[in-house]
Amino acid sequence: MAKIALLGYGTIGQGVAEVLRVNAASIAKRAGQEIEIKYILDLREFPGDINEDKVVHDYSVIANDPEVSIVVEMMGGIEPAYTFCKQALLAGKSVATSNKALVIKHGAELIKIAKENSLNFLFEASVGGGIPIIRPLLSCLTADVVEEVTGILNGTTNYMMYQMTENGWEFDDILREAQAKGYAEADPTADIEGHDACRKIAILTSLVCGKQVDFEEIHCEGITKISATDIKYAKAMGKKIKLLASSWLNGDKYTAMVSPVMLPPEHPLYNVDDVFNAVFVHGNMLDDAMFYGRGAGSLPTASAVAADIVDIVKHFGSHIAIEWAEEKVTLGDYKEAEFKYFVRAKASAVEAEAAFGPIACIFIPGVTDEIAFVTESMSGAAYEEAAAKLDIINMIRMK
Amino acid sequence: MAKIALLGYGTIGQGVAEVLRVNAASIAKRAGQEIEIKYILDLREFPGDINEDKVVHDYSVIANDPEVSIVVEMMGGIEPAYTFCKQALLAGKSVATSNKALVIKHGAELIKIAKENSLNFLFEASVGGGIPIIRPLLSCLTADVVEEVTGILNGTTNYMMYQMTENGWEFDDILREAQAKGYAEADPTADIEGHDACRKIAILTSLVCGKQVDFEEIHCEGITKISATDIKYAKAMGKKIKLLASSWLNGDKYTAMVSPVMLPPEHPLYNVDDVFNAVFVHGNMLDDAMFYGRGAGSLPTASAVAADIVDIVKHFGSHIAIEWAEEKVTLGDYKEAEFKYFVRAKASAVEAEAAFGPIACIFIPGVTDEIAFVTESMSGAAYEEAAAKLDIINMIRMK
Repeated sequence: MAKIALLGYGTIGQGVAEVLRVNAASIAKRAGQEIEIKYILDLREFPGDINEDKVVHDYSVIANDPEVSIVVEMMGGIEPAYTFCKQALLAGKSVATSNKALVIKHGAELIKIAKENSLNFLFEASVGGGIPIIRPLLSCLTADVVEEVTGILNGTTNYMMYQMTENGWEFDDILREAQAKGYAEADPTADIEGHDACRKIAILTSLVCGKQVDFEEIHCEGITKISATDIKYAKAMGKKIKLLASSWLNGDKYTAMVSPVMLPPEHPLYNVDDVFNAVFVHGNMLDDAMFYGRGAGSLPTASAVAADIVDIVKHFGSHIAIEWAEEKVTLGDYKEAEFKYFVRAKASAVEAEAAFGPIACIFIPGVTDEIAFVTESMSGAAYEEAAAKLDIINMIRMK
Repeated sequence: MAKIALLGYGTIGQGVAEVLRVNAASIAKRAGQEIEIKYILDLREFPGDINEDKVVHDYSVIANDPEVSIVVEMMGGIEPAYTFCKQALLAGKSVATSNKALVIKHGAELIKIAKENSLNFLFEASVGGGIPIIRPLLSCLTADVVEEVTGILNGTTNYMMYQMTENGWEFDDILREAQAKGYAEADPTADIEGHDACRKIAILTSLVCGKQVDFEEIHCEGITKISATDIKYAKAMGKKIKLLASSWLNGDKYTAMVSPVMLPPEHPLYNVDDVFNAVFVHGNMLDDAMFYGRGAGSLPTASAVAADIVDIVKHFGSHIAIEWAEEKVTLGDYKEAEFKYFVRAKASAVEAEAAFGPIACIFIPGVTDEIAFVTESMSGAAYEEAAAKLDIINMIRMK
């Protein structure tokens, strides 16, 4: 019998409790022993909840109980999550977490402490919710040099882009609707500005490099500038606009970026719609692969957390190697990366061509007071130089 | 330095040698030590090949060399692959294989021998080529009851169905073209009759159940009856016809089946075209997930084999648990499974309705000497009873 403690009893915490209860028999079989929740740390009480008697408010009860072999952190944020996880590892307890902010800031250190103590620090649910991506990256793509990882990693923004595409809505209207439905938070900044996706691609890139990628160094654009008119142009070209979080090998460095991108129908991510997420991986031997599923939601995310718990129980006494050194990676300059650009500007075709060189213009009914065009492939630096010469309305990169 | 032997130096064997050579540095880092090919067993000589001096023709050289810690079997077929793999395990060598025929027939026994000797028997490449699916099933979906696994598991037939859909060709024409391009074998039976996909879904179902599924007990229909006219009807309904290999929980039993199915655009497998393969999984907690990639090809398959080799090296001295007992699973009766059916018959609408109950007719230009319709949801047994009353041209199940 493995005894565990849940830190945080919100949506994911309650989901983990449900997964462990509903699938108790099959989980015990795969883990080799039963798994029991001994404590739940939360500031609140949960009267009437099936686990109400397990709720404690003082972490030291958990930290000091030698019976607890796994701490499952689902509080979010850096503190006190970091202090609690570190304390757990130093007290001989393995840790599973769904907390991307914690993982990208302190993952390398916590993995190191886990390794030194023959424990485990696992975090499958921190990226892509229910989509198995971290474990496949670490255990299935070991014979490949991963040349690209590109994900639709944020459910809120993918839902919004999908609804704008399906219904022709403006950004502000769909944001209000998403907030009303509970798909977007009251303060949606982290989602719509791309910060959430940015932390997730920083984690994936760190795992690909085996070294620390700081998310603050990743160029990050959100979806707030995308309008119904942009969507109309995309449709006219047979493309969809998605918020992509991407990193790719350029020479000997990885370049990482979060931004809206126009995808053609033949791209595997083109059909990842609504609240679904997916991660596209290109290996130098494997070629293209994609992992698809629910990027959020209580039970899918809890399923990933619970799979980490099972893995930890199966590996009691041994460390599952995760290559992630604290040494920092130097990322490539995103301005050196080449894209074709979709551009809308207040300009004439002659002016646009003078600035950008050869362009392909796009016309849609009812839009006459601007020019829209696609450039040839050019670096970010070259784009900026050309764009400075025109009155730009919006720009979206193309795949 | 881990020394390995390759059994078979055809497409996949040469691919594995290339993967290990090109990615030697990153593989050594992840495995914790260098990996060196000491022997290659093949009946042929390979003059001029970079590994020509490693070729041997007598397996006992490998079996009796204590330096060889891993045997990589890529010969295909049951014998001598089975004898060689068993001998290797009994001699203290772990085994990686890409051989689906071997895995479905003797996998349970070879895993057992591996376990008893703290060795490993891994077979990621036996299903889905380069798509990571077996390891995710075993290590990521451990907290779920897997309620459905449905795959496009055969590249040849998916290429053929894609070309028929894109170009309106008849079956025989596209088969000849696929053979000319090397996508289909001279004797294409195993692919087009669904036998290849059947073995693969038997492996996946065995892993989901933890017990032995015999592929001979799986109802298996190939794509040989699919005509250009069927494709036209599918298009008229906005659907695509794919050869699906599927198993799903029905009550307390898994039912498994291989057959062409019409998929709607919203199904994740709808867009898996051309030579790509994919596996859709539904877990009771995870909900829907999908794994997508190249189902065949030298390097993608070799990448999966090489990842198994890395995993074995990382786990020298310990067994990676795979739940697959020799005890046989009793599958559910496929005739109890309910589908809607697309039916073409030489009959009137009145006769069709008399046989099948309420139907929805479909008309396409230029086809007047038959009736085509979709039934309500009904069991396979009820379908057969109704179909016996009409002169049926073809039937395709619908999702």
